[in-house]
Amino acid sequence: MAQQKKMVEEITSMEEDFAKWYTDVVKKAELIEYTSVKGCMVIRPYGYAIWENMQKELDTRFKELGHENVCMPMFIPESLLNKEKDHVEGFAPEVAWVTHGGNEPLEERLCVRPTSETLFCEHYKAIVQSYRDLPKLYNQWVSVVRWEKTTRPFLRSREFLWQEGHTIHATAEEAREETLRILDLYADFCENFLAMPVVKGVKTEKERFAGAEDTYTIEALMHDGKALQSGTSHYFGDGFAKAFGIQYTDKDNQLKTPYQTSWGVTTRLIGAIIMTHGDNNGLVLPPKVAPIQVVVVPVAAHKPGVIEAARDLTQRLSKVCRVKIDETDNSPGWKFAEYEMKGVPLRIEIGPKDIEKGTCVAVRRDNREKSFIDLSEVETAIPALLDAVHQGLYDAAIERRKVMTYEAKDLEELKDIADNKPGFIKAMWCGDRACEDKLKEYAGVTSRCEPFEQEQISDVCVCCGKPAKKMLYWGKAY
Amino acid sequence: MAQQKKMVEEITSMEEDFAKWYTDVVKKAELIEYTSVKGCMVIRPYGYAIWENMQKELDTRFKELGHENVCMPMFIPESLLNKEKDHVEGFAPEVAWVTHGGNEPLEERLCVRPTSETLFCEHYKAIVQSYRDLPKLYNQWVSVVRWEKTTRPFLRSREFLWQEGHTIHATAEEAREETLRILDLYADFCENFLAMPVVKGVKTEKERFAGAEDTYTIEALMHDGKALQSGTSHYFGDGFAKAFGIQYTDKDNQLKTPYQTSWGVTTRLIGAIIMTHGDNNGLVLPPKVAPIQVVVVPVAAHKPGVIEAARDLTQRLSKVCRVKIDETDNSPGWKFAEYEMKGVPLRIEIGPKDIEKGTCVAVRRDNREKSFIDLSEVETAIPALLDAVHQGLYDAAIERRKVMTYEAKDLEELKDIADNKPGFIKAMWCGDRACEDKLKEYAGVTSRCEPFEQEQISDVCVCCGKPAKKMLYWGKAY
Repeated sequence: MAQQKKMVEEITSMEEDFAKWYTDVVKKAELIEYTSVKGCMVIRPYGYAIWENMQKELDTRFKELGHENVCMPMFIPESLLNKEKDHVEGFAPEVAWVTHGGNEPLEERLCVRPTSETLFCEHYKAIVQSYRDLPKLYNQWVSVVRWEKTTRPFLRSREFLWQEGHTIHATAEEAREETLRILDLYADFCENFLAMPVVKGVKTEKERFAGAEDTYTIEALMHDGKALQSGTSHYFGDGFAKAFGIQYTDKDNQLKTPYQTSWGVTTRLIGAIIMTHGDNNGLVLPPKVAPIQVVVVPVAAHKPGVIEAARDLTQRLSKVCRVKIDETDNSPGWKFAEYEMKGVPLRIEIGPKDIEKGTCVAVRRDNREKSFIDLSEVETAIPALLDAVHQGLYDAAIERRKVMTYEAKDLEELKDIADNKPGFIKAMWCGDRACEDKLKEYAGVTSRCEPFEQEQISDVCVCCGKPAKKMLYWGKAY
Repeated sequence: MAQQKKMVEEITSMEEDFAKWYTDVVKKAELIEYTSVKGCMVIRPYGYAIWENMQKELDTRFKELGHENVCMPMFIPESLLNKEKDHVEGFAPEVAWVTHGGNEPLEERLCVRPTSETLFCEHYKAIVQSYRDLPKLYNQWVSVVRWEKTTRPFLRSREFLWQEGHTIHATAEEAREETLRILDLYADFCENFLAMPVVKGVKTEKERFAGAEDTYTIEALMHDGKALQSGTSHYFGDGFAKAFGIQYTDKDNQLKTPYQTSWGVTTRLIGAIIMTHGDNNGLVLPPKVAPIQVVVVPVAAHKPGVIEAARDLTQRLSKVCRVKIDETDNSPGWKFAEYEMKGVPLRIEIGPKDIEKGTCVAVRRDNREKSFIDLSEVETAIPALLDAVHQGLYDAAIERRKVMTYEAKDLEELKDIADNKPGFIKAMWCGDRACEDKLKEYAGVTSRCEPFEQEQISDVCVCCGKPAKKMLYWGKAY
């Protein structure tokens, strides 16, 4: 019986409707499925496998730096959440409240963690007594809940998966070092694992995490010119420790207050790679994170020797990459479209003519470049091609960011760019919250960060014309 | 400055108070810490590392059998939970209810998943249309919440970590095969990874999972003679599929109802290994799951060459096992006690005399056996010793179970054993729920399972004296 299978479904083009393109891709590439739980989603096997690859890499890097994994409860009693004033103000409006256990009302209601600073603080108070107990470098892989009004898969959902690092140190200096060490780790991960360039910098006070002294961020630029905050690392100073009464006895026998950090990246990174690398044929996955790095498609599979040669090739490749063979009786053309849509970085075609010549055809997903690979060399040639795809994606993203990054010297220029040219805007700032608010109101942009790499666009604030203190990146953001 | 460090803390002896011994071990070996969230706990790095080792092994085994990981929402709308009658009756009394998002009451309250059959059913209804979509072999690693009244770390807590497999198949036969395949996987994992013998069998109707046609179980015997249900695998028939309206078009073009299974093991397994292998000096970890398999303790570390030799040994061992060197200036005696308490399977001592002789001393945690290992042979000798510790633990547990398994032919004999001899009781049963209820009421035992390996203890039911249908294992249980 001939196998009937749906043809690869249409994806709305980016230019026509970017938001629709995005939801088409996440649905049709089978990354997620909606549920009857509003604002929550099922992460399907292909989407979850991407997350598992990210997790594995990050977890290894965290552990190499001496971090240990733990698991905190998912609930936070209301009184515990209330302990740090700025923190509760930031999070209380968007938490989910558990009020009943079974048929009985709870004595005190519990929120489902929106983040776990308060739980870690309570724990650190219990286990940190001496300088010998410091530092503690803890991390956990869990899901958190924030009751968002409008939601989009991966980018903003009521429940999302993440890792949250929480560390506690004897000195402010050590805690600051940790904050920046992790920021660097995140940036390196984005660039070298996800092929996604990021701008490193520090948030303004307005955009800071609730309870932090400083929030560092990595900001990426999406295909549509919007910014995506892709990871944050917070320096808390001793604010949380004081609010929770955490103290330790130092070598000099004095009671001292320790310093803390927290940092996290989320499943939002899946959204980030979709919107950085994707195109009108669907997903484009950076090779290091792709569940399937190479798909082998036999051509004229009914001809003698083809299936055997394709299987043999797959078997050999399985030792150097994540490879899959598609032996279904769908047409090669259907398969080409299907794996393009699913973003598989490299497709290998092998048919009777190739076998005769002792070669196979490799087609890159990122630029469709075709090359003929000598069958005797696949174990080295294919990994090299995967590296080339990674580099190609990274270079294209850097180039796009360059083209889409603008400079503005005054308010009208900034507004004109914001209205007509999607992308990052570099502009000077006096440091006043009022100017930040005005740029949001007048031009619809928010400050993304004060980048570590400063430039002198002009001498005065883009908004008020007073002397400028620093250059910021501005933009519309997810 | 001399380092001051607390001496290893005392652990209550098992014979004096088993429950206290257990909580002493979980606290003092730093597996958990209590929190202000009643019935929930922090799993600390040493405890979480045990779970990570279990996870890694199980996840690999699941994937080898073709299972894929997914992630469902943590919330279930009340109307969705209500769809399968038996299921909701079983779980509704013990779920936590979310009633507010931020400051607003929800239109429909949501429970925090106690298990996810309903969510998987909803999802399968959305994605299964044709026989080509079957089977789906899904699993997820998440935490679930059950609002228990009395709680104990790992054994029964309001939130616990687990994996839940949920599969859907075209035929009843396939689904039954899956149920038993996973039961075998669980049993093999317990025996060959955790060194913990289990009895495989099927639950009576009374002890069945809410909504299942059959619940298969593995039952282990703890040090105190109580049984611990260590993993379950459920065959659902087509009950859930009918309740949720899941149908597929078969090859013959007919609409048919698929068949389902679910199965899970939890962080309870950490409690199981503590109570199977532990002793009055603390934890005893089976080597395959131990975060630290070997600890190297330098003796007379101030003498020339000792630290260097210990480091060299550690470096070499790190290629064949998970090894840690303790270079702190605590005394060797303190270190011996500390790592015994933490259950490290093998301790290696190395001092000036050993170095002179070209050997080191290895001490097994399970039986304290000492052996002298030629330094040139550690890469083979130490892994072999770890295998021996695994085998020693398994053999001891089997022997203990043998000694603590009794047979009862009538009610009085059963009650006498139940009152005076902790352990499993093998006894015949007529199949009537009334007799099961009576044994619970009169002798305080529950049916653990109908084991696959049946024996003929007598011809009649241990309770009513009518003809017996099968032999069951009975016991007091966690």
